[in-house]
Amino acid sequence: MTATIIDGKARAAALREDVAGEVATLKRDHDVTPGLAVVLVGEDPASKVYVANKAKQTVAAGMVSFEHKLTEETSEAALLELVAHLNADPDVDGILVQMPLPRHIDTDRVVEAIDPAKDVDGLHPMNAGKIVLGRPGLVPCTPRGCVILAKEAIGNLAGKHAVVVGRSILVGKPVSLLLQNENCTVSMAHSRTVDLPSLCRQADILVAAVGRQEMIRGDWVKPGACVIDVGINRIPAPEKGDGKTRLVGDVAFEEAVEVAGAITPVPGGVGPMTIACLLANTVTAARLRRGLPAVDL
Amino acid sequence: MTATIIDGKARAAALREDVAGEVATLKRDHDVTPGLAVVLVGEDPASKVYVANKAKQTVAAGMVSFEHKLTEETSEAALLELVAHLNADPDVDGILVQMPLPRHIDTDRVVEAIDPAKDVDGLHPMNAGKIVLGRPGLVPCTPRGCVILAKEAIGNLAGKHAVVVGRSILVGKPVSLLLQNENCTVSMAHSRTVDLPSLCRQADILVAAVGRQEMIRGDWVKPGACVIDVGINRIPAPEKGDGKTRLVGDVAFEEAVEVAGAITPVPGGVGPMTIACLLANTVTAARLRRGLPAVDL
Ligand SMILES: NC(=O)c1ccc[n+]([C@@H]2O[C@H](COP(=O)([O-])OP(=O)(O)OC[C@H]3O[C@@H](n4cnc5c(N)ncnc54)[C@H](OP(=O)(O)O)[C@@H]3O)[C@@H](O)[C@H]2O)c1
Ligand SMILES: NC(=O)c1ccc[n+]([C@@H]2O[C@H](COP(=O)([O-])OP(=O)(O)OC[C@H]3O[C@@H](n4cnc5c(N)ncnc54)[C@H](OP(=O)(O)O)[C@@H]3O)[C@@H](O)[C@H]2O)c1
Repeated sequence: MTATIIDGKARAAALREDVAGEVATLKRDHDVTPGLAVVLVGEDPASKVYVANKAKQTVAAGMVSFEHKLTEETSEAALLELVAHLNADPDVDGILVQMPLPRHIDTDRVVEAIDPAKDVDGLHPMNAGKIVLGRPGLVPCTPRGCVILAKEAIGNLAGKHAVVVGRSILVGKPVSLLLQNENCTVSMAHSRTVDLPSLCRQADILVAAVGRQEMIRGDWVKPGACVIDVGINRIPAPEKGDGKTRLVGDVAFEEAVEVAGAITPVPGGVGPMTIACLLANTVTAARLRRGLPAVDL
Repeated sequence: MTATIIDGKARAAALREDVAGEVATLKRDHDVTPGLAVVLVGEDPASKVYVANKAKQTVAAGMVSFEHKLTEETSEAALLELVAHLNADPDVDGILVQMPLPRHIDTDRVVEAIDPAKDVDGLHPMNAGKIVLGRPGLVPCTPRGCVILAKEAIGNLAGKHAVVVGRSILVGKPVSLLLQNENCTVSMAHSRTVDLPSLCRQADILVAAVGRQEMIRGDWVKPGACVIDVGINRIPAPEKGDGKTRLVGDVAFEEAVEVAGAITPVPGGVGPMTIACLLANTVTAARLRRGLPAVDL
């Protein structure tokens, strides 16, 4: 058996279309154009690429993009002042402060300073709490992308046993909670888990968010399972030429594809979903802030 | 084999002693006497008993108890006004609004109105979020009691597989997150879980928080496991006389005690821990609000 490859690129494009449609509706019916402010501190090359992509896709969806680029030396106080300014700006519906921040800045303090109603990254404790309480709020983007792809592959998730490997604040924990909210039985695994392979073998849905290249082997996968690989690991690819690299996930794809029922590739799986979900969150924030009901995106 | 019976009454008494010691220290070193305000709306008989017990134990630990009893007809606005007043009162370190509230009052709105720094019930989204983010905050009382009893029985919990049956906001979800923070592998089960018995059989730590009398049978328990029974169910006890009742848990105790390594009884297990943890939270709130480091209680 060979697994269905879950096409994250196509799913993300469809979600971006839906977002663009909702943006058009908001404009037409309410004269509102959602705005997303992205704040970049410093010169991290990967962060610069992400921020540029976010801005481009924001504009492509018909929204307004505000970019704030601050030098590496920016003080915490100055960053907090900018956040306060964006909180107060009625044209800004979403605020995203690109991580990682320079070491001299307290990340938690900055995240907590963002108005929870504009926290489109879903990292504010209020939004994390709302996931626990099962209340509507802004949900972290990559975890939401994982759930959308799992649904794309297998439809209703209720009653499925999901095993989530990794428990980071950014990915593993929120994925677990979102899958529980979808009525999965969820097992949360991490570096202290004993006999991880046999736990993984029980999974109808196996989510890998570890950051270790191809750690999850084909024989850890239950035949027919849905495998969501969040990992993005860059490894040498001498076959492509001297000094070349390529991306692999946390799952040994070539092995797992022979066993799974459906699997996300890396790249082209979870990755593209993140920005699409960010745009969807911006629309949700724009609606909720104006007392309009959220739409299902 | 017969399981060790985990003595929640004794553990709760020890915790209350520790709390009283910390209260004395706060008085001596900082001239601070922690205060707990309990708000009761209406005449629910069970709630009245709880509130009276809380007040008694608060005073016994050397703290100040403020009781606010409002009629069933109290408006939401009036309750919110009282909460605002308690938030602003420097003598009040903890605020507990006894649940359930009358139907005409929006419980979520009331909980969110409590200053998270005084939310000793740990129900505010900010505090729920802090559990997810693994940051210090105020932790719900019954879940914290479960973790303390599991540690009492088996020491370090790291690497243990915990299965939590039930996912309520009050008990199941926070227990799962707290056990994960103790480095357990945690499986979260609920009414949609398929083949619950075989999942339970994998548990080194089995937490039952379902509200169904003796649902979890002896042969669902792995030999030697630690069983924490949160359930409190009142059933007829004709053997004690006509119309008499008794309490049983969510675990079939007589069966499970033959298989488990350790087990909490009902009553006398988790039950007594709740108020003791509430007192501990009040001390923690009193310290954190004054910029003093939390003490390990
Ligand atoms: N858009 C996207 O697609 C996207 C977004 C974010 C992240 N990612 C990728 O996803 C991966 C995970 O990211 P992250 O931010 O969650 O990473 P992280 O913060 O480093 O967390 C890694 C998690 O994996 C666990 N872990 C480490 N070694 C393990 C082992 N041998 N067995 C089991 N668990 C182990 C850790 O457990 P402990 O908690 O016990 O240490 C931790 O919970 C990375 O490759 C990252 O690049 C992709
Ligand atoms: N101080 C204390 O000791 C203390 C404090 C609080 C509560 N309690 C007791 O603890 C028990 C649970 O309280 P709670 O507030 O958490 O109750 P709850 O809000 O009614 O939640 C019950 C949970 O059990 C799950 N469940 C119901 N039937 C099930 C089944 N057949 N198989 C598997 N799961 C099932 C439900 O799943 P779904 O989510 O899928 O519906 C739900 O998540 C009660 O007996 C309560 O009296 C004791």
